[in-house]
Amino acid sequence: MSKTEVPYKIYLTEDEMPKAWYNLRADMKVKPAPLMHPGTHKALTAEELTPIFCEELVAQELDETTPFIEIPEEIRGFYKMYRPSPLVRAYCLEQKLQTPAKIYYKFEGNNTSGSHKLNSAIAQAYYAKKQGLKGVTTETGAGQWGTALSMACAYFGLDCKVYMVKVSYEQKPFRREVMRTYGASVVPSPSETTEVGKKILAEHPGTTGSLGCAISEAVEVATKNPGYRYVLGSVLNQVLLHQSVIGLETKTALDKYGIKPDIIIGCAGGGSNLGGLIAPFMGEKLRGEADYRIIAVEPASCPSFTRGTFAYDFCDTGMICPLAKMYTLGSSFIPSANHAGGLRFHGMSTTLSQLYHDGYMEATSVEQTSVFEAAEQFARIEGILPAPESAHAIRVAIDEALKCKETGEEKTIVFGLTGTGYFDLVAYQKYNDKEMSDYIPTDEEIAASVAKLPKVE
Amino acid sequence: MSKTEVPYKIYLTEDEMPKAWYNLRADMKVKPAPLMHPGTHKALTAEELTPIFCEELVAQELDETTPFIEIPEEIRGFYKMYRPSPLVRAYCLEQKLQTPAKIYYKFEGNNTSGSHKLNSAIAQAYYAKKQGLKGVTTETGAGQWGTALSMACAYFGLDCKVYMVKVSYEQKPFRREVMRTYGASVVPSPSETTEVGKKILAEHPGTTGSLGCAISEAVEVATKNPGYRYVLGSVLNQVLLHQSVIGLETKTALDKYGIKPDIIIGCAGGGSNLGGLIAPFMGEKLRGEADYRIIAVEPASCPSFTRGTFAYDFCDTGMICPLAKMYTLGSSFIPSANHAGGLRFHGMSTTLSQLYHDGYMEATSVEQTSVFEAAEQFARIEGILPAPESAHAIRVAIDEALKCKETGEEKTIVFGLTGTGYFDLVAYQKYNDKEMSDYIPTDEEIAASVAKLPKVE
Repeated sequence: MSKTEVPYKIYLTEDEMPKAWYNLRADMKVKPAPLMHPGTHKALTAEELTPIFCEELVAQELDETTPFIEIPEEIRGFYKMYRPSPLVRAYCLEQKLQTPAKIYYKFEGNNTSGSHKLNSAIAQAYYAKKQGLKGVTTETGAGQWGTALSMACAYFGLDCKVYMVKVSYEQKPFRREVMRTYGASVVPSPSETTEVGKKILAEHPGTTGSLGCAISEAVEVATKNPGYRYVLGSVLNQVLLHQSVIGLETKTALDKYGIKPDIIIGCAGGGSNLGGLIAPFMGEKLRGEADYRIIAVEPASCPSFTRGTFAYDFCDTGMICPLAKMYTLGSSFIPSANHAGGLRFHGMSTTLSQLYHDGYMEATSVEQTSVFEAAEQFARIEGILPAPESAHAIRVAIDEALKCKETGEEKTIVFGLTGTGYFDLVAYQKYNDKEMSDYIPTDEEIAASVAKLPKVE
Repeated sequence: MSKTEVPYKIYLTEDEMPKAWYNLRADMKVKPAPLMHPGTHKALTAEELTPIFCEELVAQELDETTPFIEIPEEIRGFYKMYRPSPLVRAYCLEQKLQTPAKIYYKFEGNNTSGSHKLNSAIAQAYYAKKQGLKGVTTETGAGQWGTALSMACAYFGLDCKVYMVKVSYEQKPFRREVMRTYGASVVPSPSETTEVGKKILAEHPGTTGSLGCAISEAVEVATKNPGYRYVLGSVLNQVLLHQSVIGLETKTALDKYGIKPDIIIGCAGGGSNLGGLIAPFMGEKLRGEADYRIIAVEPASCPSFTRGTFAYDFCDTGMICPLAKMYTLGSSFIPSANHAGGLRFHGMSTTLSQLYHDGYMEATSVEQTSVFEAAEQFARIEGILPAPESAHAIRVAIDEALKCKETGEEKTIVFGLTGTGYFDLVAYQKYNDKEMSDYIPTDEEIAASVAKLPKVE
């Protein structure tokens, strides 16, 4: 295929943009196991979820049968400000690698939040506004989700309270300032603004916080303040639903040029990007209409798919959230301080966990220095400075392309480039200064946290 | 005009992208005055310029007659990785302002360097490579130009030595790390690596550097090392030529939908973005084919057009560079420490200066707090966090749209959104914390530096 046939960047027209999200669960014969109440061990009902989450989002969370859910006009209007995102043909990378493979990437970083997170943030903010709420609360670690939610809330005039893990609040002041510029209030967690925060501060005066603690604070504020609900940026089914816009656009763009991918690659933390990217392709696979190799890439330091256990577990380290059946390293597992904050989650989306369990997808793990090597190579050749999370997918895409070089196969590889690395330059500096190291947990470490999984049934 | 007629973002196809740059000077009856030798006060010849600049770039610098200069295939290939840039219809901003005006912006921030600077960096790197050079040297202050040049050099495998003003090197470590990730060597200036740097350090041991000093170091290294040349990111005619790609794309996109702008607005520091954006429109105006209001926006703290003098002056504060006839505040003018580093230049492109002098364009100046107010408003409504430089154009675009609201006129406004503000969050923090102030130089201050202009003829 010559360069003139497929452009460097395939952009859909506005008419070609998806008008409905695709609900992958509708095509799954074995549905993901339901969220369970941590006390009663019974499947959570809509009634139990609505004090925490917005009503329509609860409905989406529990809907396992409707294949397509219309994207409201207001959300489609917002999508048009930064979408469609380009599907890029990596001609320069192919040439540099001297591979017969054809490499494409769906680039989600061309918006101020810098990642795909905005796709779900705007949806969740919309439903909160529609319900007449005053505002929403959330937690953020690395800051991509908090930034995205701040942008979405600014657009709809909603109040946005972000509990930011204290160590990130202090180490990533620029992320914090973006959120503040969008009008969000950003509170370092643990804080004196909540009961749970006060309790933790009393017990651990010098603590720099954790995601589990920030979740607890955000949930407390949402449930105690009338007109507020809590929102979450990954793991949940509703989030995968909204993120299906990534995969739907990708498929339409490929179809325009008659391209059928052989391999689809995405990085996996909680699963929001991977689940969104693969959705329509996995749907074809589930319906027996097509076959694809689908590869989840996770950090070797936090290998939930490749070394975790498929079982019910808490979604948060604070153990206050519902139980989800998923591949997990145990909610007490503390990943080493790697630089892909968005992938440092002990568990995984229940939908993706079920699909992996049932053999519909593969998973692999990669070490951080090799990830940054790929990131640097990609930046220099394709021009884009990738987020460390995204670079996990780049690593495996390059490896697969190099295998094609050996075998001479002209495979078509598609990967998700979820975001940019502008706020990750401390990590790049460590790599540039050759001060970055790898850490792989021992079997004993994983076994120790898995041993603490809640006993269910 | 309804929303369905013009999309939110107009993207050209690759076939529609410009194949030649437009040399505005070819259509000027009164040409810009030539660069002069600082010692002899004679117009500089190609022979005198080639020890410093690449040969083909010198030819472009001196060419006043060729209207279109072909963009080499290699540069067009690189352009396709991040161009065409979108021309965005600011529907959301229009709605929020309740203005009958139609607002468009050409967004140049969707690349890792974060600005339009890459358009000229890749061209200059290409010609250096073609000439068989080993590398190039440059200076950078705020860091956009240094980043862009690092990316371009990485692509062509050229060595890149960036002298970064020491205070920026220390205060903007992330900019530095992006450059290092692209393989550039970044040296804080003044440094011990040059004679001029050693001299300055001996005389001023604690100095945090200046752009003038960094230029001197970069030029010294380029001229003393075989296989190296010096490159510059603004002011020069060659840079405006390369940046014409912005205006050419804008015009093609508008023409596709039969849109004729009434007002074209750009921020102006050295003039590279403004000169590029307006090029084809100004060409029509010069040829008497169309008329447009063209507005240059500069910071009130560094008002070269609105309060400067049209005269020969040094381009650098170190007074080692050629003399250029331009609107200038005097090369000894020290602008207050405002947050739009890219606009803190005492002079202006000679081409734009001549056009302004001859009445083909207007200029206005705005104060920084009002610029950040517009930046925040724009970010919240249109989603993009703008660079402080770009926000100068946003400020005036909003003001013009509000005038239309008063008069009821449905004017079409086009402005240049040159880049993103991801590396300017210290400035946003100051604004968020209400710690930002304005400073306007007094008449006496400007008169004092203008009095030191070199005596020519």
